[in-house]
Amino acid sequence: MRALERADIPILLLSGGVDGGGKGEVVNLLLEWMDPRHIQVRAMGVPTDEERERPPMWRFWRALPPRGKTGVFFGSWYTAPIVDRVYGRTRGAELTRALAEITRFERMLVDEGALLVKVWMHLSKKAQGKRFRELESDPKTAWRVTREDWANQARYDRFREVSERALRDTNTAEAPWTVVEATDRRYRNLTVGHTLLTAMNKRLERRRTPTVRAAPPPPPPIDARNVLVDLDLTRSLTDAQYAKKLPRAQGRLNAASRHKRFHDGRACVVVFEGNDAAGKGGAIRRVTRALDARSYDVVPVAAPTEEERAQPYLWRFWRSLPRHGRFTIFDRSWYGRVLVERVEGFAAEPDWMRAYREIVDFEESMARAGIVVVKFWLAISSAEQLARFKLREKTPFKRFKITEEDWRNRDKWSAYERAVCDMVDRTSTDVAPWHLVEANDKRWARVKIVETLADALEKAL
Amino acid sequence: MRALERADIPILLLSGGVDGGGKGEVVNLLLEWMDPRHIQVRAMGVPTDEERERPPMWRFWRALPPRGKTGVFFGSWYTAPIVDRVYGRTRGAELTRALAEITRFERMLVDEGALLVKVWMHLSKKAQGKRFRELESDPKTAWRVTREDWANQARYDRFREVSERALRDTNTAEAPWTVVEATDRRYRNLTVGHTLLTAMNKRLERRRTPTVRAAPPPPPPIDARNVLVDLDLTRSLTDAQYAKKLPRAQGRLNAASRHKRFHDGRACVVVFEGNDAAGKGGAIRRVTRALDARSYDVVPVAAPTEEERAQPYLWRFWRSLPRHGRFTIFDRSWYGRVLVERVEGFAAEPDWMRAYREIVDFEESMARAGIVVVKFWLAISSAEQLARFKLREKTPFKRFKITEEDWRNRDKWSAYERAVCDMVDRTSTDVAPWHLVEANDKRWARVKIVETLADALEKAL
Repeated sequence: MRALERADIPILLLSGGVDGGGKGEVVNLLLEWMDPRHIQVRAMGVPTDEERERPPMWRFWRALPPRGKTGVFFGSWYTAPIVDRVYGRTRGAELTRALAEITRFERMLVDEGALLVKVWMHLSKKAQGKRFRELESDPKTAWRVTREDWANQARYDRFREVSERALRDTNTAEAPWTVVEATDRRYRNLTVGHTLLTAMNKRLERRRTPTVRAAPPPPPPIDARNVLVDLDLTRSLTDAQYAKKLPRAQGRLNAASRHKRFHDGRACVVVFEGNDAAGKGGAIRRVTRALDARSYDVVPVAAPTEEERAQPYLWRFWRSLPRHGRFTIFDRSWYGRVLVERVEGFAAEPDWMRAYREIVDFEESMARAGIVVVKFWLAISSAEQLARFKLREKTPFKRFKITEEDWRNRDKWSAYERAVCDMVDRTSTDVAPWHLVEANDKRWARVKIVETLADALEKAL
Repeated sequence: MRALERADIPILLLSGGVDGGGKGEVVNLLLEWMDPRHIQVRAMGVPTDEERERPPMWRFWRALPPRGKTGVFFGSWYTAPIVDRVYGRTRGAELTRALAEITRFERMLVDEGALLVKVWMHLSKKAQGKRFRELESDPKTAWRVTREDWANQARYDRFREVSERALRDTNTAEAPWTVVEATDRRYRNLTVGHTLLTAMNKRLERRRTPTVRAAPPPPPPIDARNVLVDLDLTRSLTDAQYAKKLPRAQGRLNAASRHKRFHDGRACVVVFEGNDAAGKGGAIRRVTRALDARSYDVVPVAAPTEEERAQPYLWRFWRSLPRHGRFTIFDRSWYGRVLVERVEGFAAEPDWMRAYREIVDFEESMARAGIVVVKFWLAISSAEQLARFKLREKTPFKRFKITEEDWRNRDKWSAYERAVCDMVDRTSTDVAPWHLVEANDKRWARVKIVETLADALEKAL
């Protein structure tokens, strides 16, 4: 316990299984053995309204324990997929998708250093009925058996079938299930305690022996085609065209943002990435001017805070997701992992390689929850960047915008270019495609951005 | 702007006033002038259910901008007190209390380094009616006038009366109101911009000139009586008494925690403070064993994180307040300010002096929101502490619990004792009294704690 804490490993214990199997009793027992001050028990009951307005995984992300703490989940990411399938609210294909998503999510947690222990309490139908009747006969525990429990009991076989499927699909090497026969209380408690202890020891041992990292996946088959080279950076607008087109696009965007359907279950996430000095700030201001000040947040992405560093990489972005009817505009984003962190070597290759898949999952979760995801890459030519850097150095009130680092990044122009092409290649999905914006001419870029955003929203409404 | 950011000053702009006065337009305009990436607009509309289950100020605390950012509040802590009074949902005395609380809250923000700018848009009744009709006649803006707006217009005079009262009571030196005549849009916009700019410049100037701190309040009239000396530390229980009394008290606590009324609008905050080695950890475990693992969080209070350091002192405790039907158990607490920070000189005297009042306000807000606040001071004698330290050094698995710092703290025994007596004296209120626990005998202490907690809950239900 304490060793794991010092090793800064977050422990996640998922306690699942049949109603009446004693999920609660087991956790109460664990809390007696361990120090409750380092354990965060997460009872994931009915979602709150703030949670309902976000993708289903949002509440689990916000409940993740930071490194060095233990999180015990009652009711986990398995509950909704299983219950929904049992009651026929979802189809088999959706269950398959949900389980695949869970597998990748758990994989990510383990890759980020967590120890994941999953125990499943099993009771036969007969034993479950007996347990319920026992609990009901004692006035002190009768409250624990609800009408819902009996309704679930009536569907015992269906629950068993769906749960078995879920366990089979998610019983991975990095996060295996331990099924615990829960009829005998003492046996059950011992088994759970033992499972947890073994997992903890194994994890610590692994740290002591030199870590043999799984061989990284083969390097990406780099597309010979450089999408950036294909851009026509000479595209531009005259002042007159700009003065006409920008307000029109902003009007459309404004109308879409006030649409009833946008407020009833939609939201929007806008990602701005681009070369240094490509004009992200100015473009963001043209977008926000079309919106009501009360309806958006702009999140400038800089170095993560201490609390963010104690969590998986994507945690800081999950926490900023918008509620219904709102915009979150990211000035730089989770793509830093496959851009600056890759190029500068801040992230190891296996880490940025897996980020592509994690990011696609992240954006798909948003899209499924009704969030319109719009991503812009603002591209300027190397010559244009040089000209802008020089201009900034000469303009007193813009000088703060240019640093040594900007000059250093220029030296790595082609490494960045390659990273951008890989990123566009691997993370342009149907639900969240990249929009490449020719940004040598600021007017062209701004109009294209506001128009693209208006298009995307109108299409979604 | 940028200078304030570098100076790490959080700016709070409250934009209040008459409906139709253009609160929104003004903020949109400010966002055009300033960089939206450093501004967090907080539209405090209808509270979410997570917010409704906490004290009314919780949602404002969670929306405070960190140092270096600007927070613009639409709808602020003034809205509810004024509207509730106008519609007769509260009495005059409650308004007075709410305004006094607001004054102290704003005082605290300023003491913590924030710049608070409050503007109030004023419109005559006639001008307001005209504005509403104008907005309604344009299809693009008609949606902005609601039935509620017209209902409020009918109560214009009452609104004016209550608002004037609120402005008068909260027009303090550290956070004055600027009333803006809003009939003429251009005049209004200029005035708001000018007000903000002047306030910002003044604030920066104050930083440049050596800060003349207001003279600290006179030192506390130390009560000659030492409450700790009066404790009878020889109190103890036999094993047999303990084995009988503890489960009985835990049973009462458990029953109270499952009470319907506790889940419908009550919650509980337990604070554990005490001498080093007084047995806080063991006592907490005796409490948690009586509770369902899903119903409580234990918050060990150590050094604040980076995000917490960028906020007022009490922010980190506000964020942990429990929802209905739940317990938050603090292992050390906000009292660190008037204990370790005072004794070690981490906080300046004016800062820990004002903390007494801030803490009393904090606990009263909790109590008014239905949170039962129970505070324990675990007292042991100097000799008992020495014996426990020595024992810990000898016991391998307890050795980690004792550090150099513990020995150093012992040298300051009398300074700590004085700080504790002042604390008990100044923060024992009707709604949140201190319970001094004779802890030389662990059995006695644990039983007393669980019994006291059960008493407090039973009384509240």
